[in-house]
Amino acid sequence: MASERLQDQINFILSADQLKSVERMSNLLESGRAENTAEHSWHVALMAVVMSEHADLPVDLARVLQLLLVHDLVEIHAGDTYVYDDTAILDQEAREQEAAEEIFGLLPEDQSRELKGFWQEFEARLTPEARFAGAMDRLMPLLHSYHEKGKTWREQGITPDQVIERVKPIQEGSEELWEFAKGLIDRAVREGYFPDGTEDGAYFRNQPGANESLA
Amino acid sequence: MASERLQDQINFILSADQLKSVERMSNLLESGRAENTAEHSWHVALMAVVMSEHADLPVDLARVLQLLLVHDLVEIHAGDTYVYDDTAILDQEAREQEAAEEIFGLLPEDQSRELKGFWQEFEARLTPEARFAGAMDRLMPLLHSYHEKGKTWREQGITPDQVIERVKPIQEGSEELWEFAKGLIDRAVREGYFPDGTEDGAYFRNQPGANESLA
Repeated sequence: MASERLQDQINFILSADQLKSVERMSNLLESGRAENTAEHSWHVALMAVVMSEHADLPVDLARVLQLLLVHDLVEIHAGDTYVYDDTAILDQEAREQEAAEEIFGLLPEDQSRELKGFWQEFEARLTPEARFAGAMDRLMPLLHSYHEKGKTWREQGITPDQVIERVKPIQEGSEELWEFAKGLIDRAVREGYFPDGTEDGAYFRNQPGANESLA
Repeated sequence: MASERLQDQINFILSADQLKSVERMSNLLESGRAENTAEHSWHVALMAVVMSEHADLPVDLARVLQLLLVHDLVEIHAGDTYVYDDTAILDQEAREQEAAEEIFGLLPEDQSRELKGFWQEFEARLTPEARFAGAMDRLMPLLHSYHEKGKTWREQGITPDQVIERVKPIQEGSEELWEFAKGLIDRAVREGYFPDGTEDGAYFRNQPGANESLA
């Protein structure tokens, strides 16, 4: 009934449904449950619609949105790798490569190549679109964690240094949003959102007046 | 720290998080839980990326994606109106208008107008982009219901006539997908996915040979 091409596209779409069952470390803002990767993907794409004016370089919005809609699909088979989990990160690349073959391989060959290309472009962070899309993907969890008053940071023992390292790619996409992100981390520190005992990291040593206050 | 404009955009994005808590009547394909509207929005946008070649008229993909990312945001305040709930549909428009003022009103004024415009364009189904986006939004639940073997249809007592009425707008966006959709409904009927006692509707009367077999 349907052409083989259409049937392949439909099989891909049905298989993508599984992304709704991949849980992330973050929780929704107003309910206790864990966020899943499908709704996260929607949220960062919506953010890009509203924030593309802050990109340092002009971006093709259609491409930014395609990158963001596709960027986490490999998690269907590779799972969500928690960004502060150093062991899982070791074999993350191999696991995700395999997962990419599996999920994008469902599509007709030209589209398989195209969508796998979106994922690779996002990961490589070389084009203006990938850099801006990456900025969205890093800014969102920071907003989340700040607005839940650092709950996940304290539960997982995450330091300000780790957060800065994690969100640094925002700078490649948008200087304005990078300034905003740094300011938000400063505020989080002042408001006590980080776990106790994280005050000996580089973040604190590099603050103006750090020598006096921590001497 | 952040400009007022950026802060308004962030407030909108944080508020949009609530769409992840709006439950739909449909379930995920491989788990019992109800789908929420945020992950549904991601899924139809991804579908548009893969299926835009089937649009009857050329479409601007960026605009299709913007319409789909925004099309259900009013549900944050108006809730999901089940398409076969005739009572709820009566005041749906008024509820959604109010909801649109509330959610899009968080944005800077130019963007508030722009995103509300996306929602109105989607609802009016007059542009090629809105018609194709609408086709995605109607095709997806049909795929879901077919692949769960009509579970929701039987639970809710939905007839083939109601489904055809519901998915008819697919025809405005894509003749090819409309043919596919009709074929899927035919198969669902043959496989017994609809509730018993729905054989007296127009769907059956209009089938070739209906007079003999139902006489």
